Amino acid sequence: MKAAIITIGDEILLGQILDTNSRFIARELTRLGAETVEMRSVGDERSEILQALADTFGKADVVIVTGGLGPTKDDITKGALAEFFHTSLEFNPQVYRWLEELFAANPERLNAYNKTQAELPKNCLPLRNRKGTACGMWFEQGGKVVVSLPGVPFETEYLLPEEVLPRLKEKFTDLNLSYHLFTVFNIPEAELAMRLADFEKSLPPDVKLAYLPSPGHVRLRLTARQGNLDTAVRDLRTALGSLHFHEGEQTPDEKVAQQLRKLGKTVACAESCTGGNIAHLITTVPGASAYFLGGVVSYSNEVKKNVLGVKVADLEKYGAVSEAVALQMAQGARRVTGADYAVATTGVAGPDGGTPEKPVGTVWIAVAGPKGTQAKKFLFSHTRERNIGKASATALLWLVEVIQQDSLSI
Amino acid sequence: MKAAIITIGDEILLGQILDTNSRFIARELTRLGAETVEMRSVGDERSEILQALADTFGKADVVIVTGGLGPTKDDITKGALAEFFHTSLEFNPQVYRWLEELFAANPERLNAYNKTQAELPKNCLPLRNRKGTACGMWFEQGGKVVVSLPGVPFETEYLLPEEVLPRLKEKFTDLNLSYHLFTVFNIPEAELAMRLADFEKSLPPDVKLAYLPSPGHVRLRLTARQGNLDTAVRDLRTALGSLHFHEGEQTPDEKVAQQLRKLGKTVACAESCTGGNIAHLITTVPGASAYFLGGVVSYSNEVKKNVLGVKVADLEKYGAVSEAVALQMAQGARRVTGADYAVATTGVAGPDGGTPEKPVGTVWIAVAGPKGTQAKKFLFSHTRERNIGKASATALLWLVEVIQQDSLSI
Repeated sequence: MKAAIITIGDEILLGQILDTNSRFIARELTRLGAETVEMRSVGDERSEILQALADTFGKADVVIVTGGLGPTKDDITKGALAEFFHTSLEFNPQVYRWLEELFAANPERLNAYNKTQAELPKNCLPLRNRKGTACGMWFEQGGKVVVSLPGVPFETEYLLPEEVLPRLKEKFTDLNLSYHLFTVFNIPEAELAMRLADFEKSLPPDVKLAYLPSPGHVRLRLTARQGNLDTAVRDLRTALGSLHFHEGEQTPDEKVAQQLRKLGKTVACAESCTGGNIAHLITTVPGASAYFLGGVVSYSNEVKKNVLGVKVADLEKYGAVSEAVALQMAQGARRVTGADYAVATTGVAGPDGGTPEKPVGTVWIAVAGPKGTQAKKFLFSHTRERNIGKASATALLWLVEVIQQDSLSI
Repeated sequence: MKAAIITIGDEILLGQILDTNSRFIARELTRLGAETVEMRSVGDERSEILQALADTFGKADVVIVTGGLGPTKDDITKGALAEFFHTSLEFNPQVYRWLEELFAANPERLNAYNKTQAELPKNCLPLRNRKGTACGMWFEQGGKVVVSLPGVPFETEYLLPEEVLPRLKEKFTDLNLSYHLFTVFNIPEAELAMRLADFEKSLPPDVKLAYLPSPGHVRLRLTARQGNLDTAVRDLRTALGSLHFHEGEQTPDEKVAQQLRKLGKTVACAESCTGGNIAHLITTVPGASAYFLGGVVSYSNEVKKNVLGVKVADLEKYGAVSEAVALQMAQGARRVTGADYAVATTGVAGPDGGTPEKPVGTVWIAVAGPKGTQAKKFLFSHTRERNIGKASATALLWLVEVIQQDSLSI
């Protein structure tokens, strides 16, 4: 089954919001085994919406549309859908009852604007939205399907799995796309490609290998539109050999969380240049309290001294961005939290604060554990965002490595 | 000038990566005064790329393409562009010298894969990429422009402002799009729409008002394709009256940073359920060290007691998610960091840990300052990500409000 995604909203084309719906929908469709052939974003313009519907309806079996269902004048998707299907809007009493239930606690808030949300194209099946006032809509014509969902990500993230995917699964049987992911660390894309050149030549024509480079790692994706990936996956595993890699959909952050949970040790952090991002990455994953005890964001030297016990003499002699301070921060975080392990970062995130000796991107990372404390110096990037991101990811990976090595050597 | 954006890559259509390039490019084009009429994402398929180029070249003056320029076999954009312009690829010695300079420190890494990156369509002007191996390309035909940029966001974020926007500004004079943004807090979209109904009716036909709802705030955008927005902006300001709002492109987080800097007080945080996200949001903005001293992520009760000085008796009597603990966390963070103000969060982020008395989404927020400490209870959402996000945003807004009130009442 082929799918296309249309997101509607001037705010997308003006660059004022990042369209996360397309990605969410595409990922869910891929998991279902459907192949997304196009994503398109158009403005709140009747003619643009009709053109996008016509183009994508021509090339896909299913078109999923988000946006333009709000109660205000700039929301025109319902009218455009009615026009596309040569029908008109009519008041739907069932949908109005859903609205009344949604506003049961505050009936006075069900105003004239919200009431227009019970007017839908005559030919649609309404999909109940329990998270907002705009209901979803399911249209069928000539064996093809068009689905309209709200632009608010939270609402589409509820409606798609709840009301749309089960119906698609029932209607379409040719859900044959399969894929497998590898994440390979610490090798540039071009070097990895040379290493995998023979493997790539050996692939059957229906299997594709793609490279998705990121700072610090490259993801490899094997995809087959039809048929089986087992042989290709086994051969790629062999070709990667001793490189540091993991398999599956998990991001490096999710993998770190899984490993920390498995290793059964408690961890903590002391962050200067990463400013809380390491703690944030750890606690984004549900269940983090099983292994994460806490952390200290020691942005000022006073916090480094008073909370983490970094020595004033070392701060003065070596500066805050130094091996001595990184080591003491990690030890301090371990001590004050009582964690088995602690990781610390201190560096120059930028854009200001760089010097010839310690340019922007210089970061010291230290890991303290029951067997001692070690520190390493890194030189990341020129931009603040990337420095925070790379330092956090590197610190987490190294923390996991140290715990793994310790547990092996016991 | 009308523009279209094409992003190329199977990884986008599979939902494996979030396309941030489209948004970045659209925002920069909007600032330039250009109107983006379509964004489209297609896979690494020759026919799909050619179709997207033909469609968008028909309706826009400028088409900006990203992706598919890497050194590996799945990157086919250059070939498709050559075909689109009825030309072929040829080795470009100038571009090869740029590659040699890029690899000056590690010439052995300039391998056969990277060398193919000096092969470009004959009719393009190469745009030097100082951040990576894939150079940008500028094509002109019949008064229209096609630009090809790398898919790696970091590289496109360098090339677009450095090499593309100045050339667009020189070539196109009809850059007339103008807009103005308001962010209005604590009012639902439909209520705001009723309040602004008369204002909206008074707008001239060339001025559009759009609503962009988010948790906790609604952004309003006034746009004019031609002409002046001054009257509309003034009238909207009047219509909003006493509502809590700010104007301009700043996000609420950037606004908080600006206000903290202006207020000239130092701040700190103690985070339980937000897990470092408040510190992360504050330190994402360059120059945060001027007002942010640090924070404590007190995920475990031990850290609440040992680092922040929360009383064991209160933890036992009221539980970690309670007014008493929130107050003591804020006071503790203020004490250990020496900051003028501290904000604290303790709550049930979910998905686990909820009880009938304290369901998932329950969050206590406290602010401590020189005039005392206050706490408030909130009930946010059902999902972990939204709870962390909303609690962090609410805590920061309230922190700024308290500092503002204190400074007014002195």
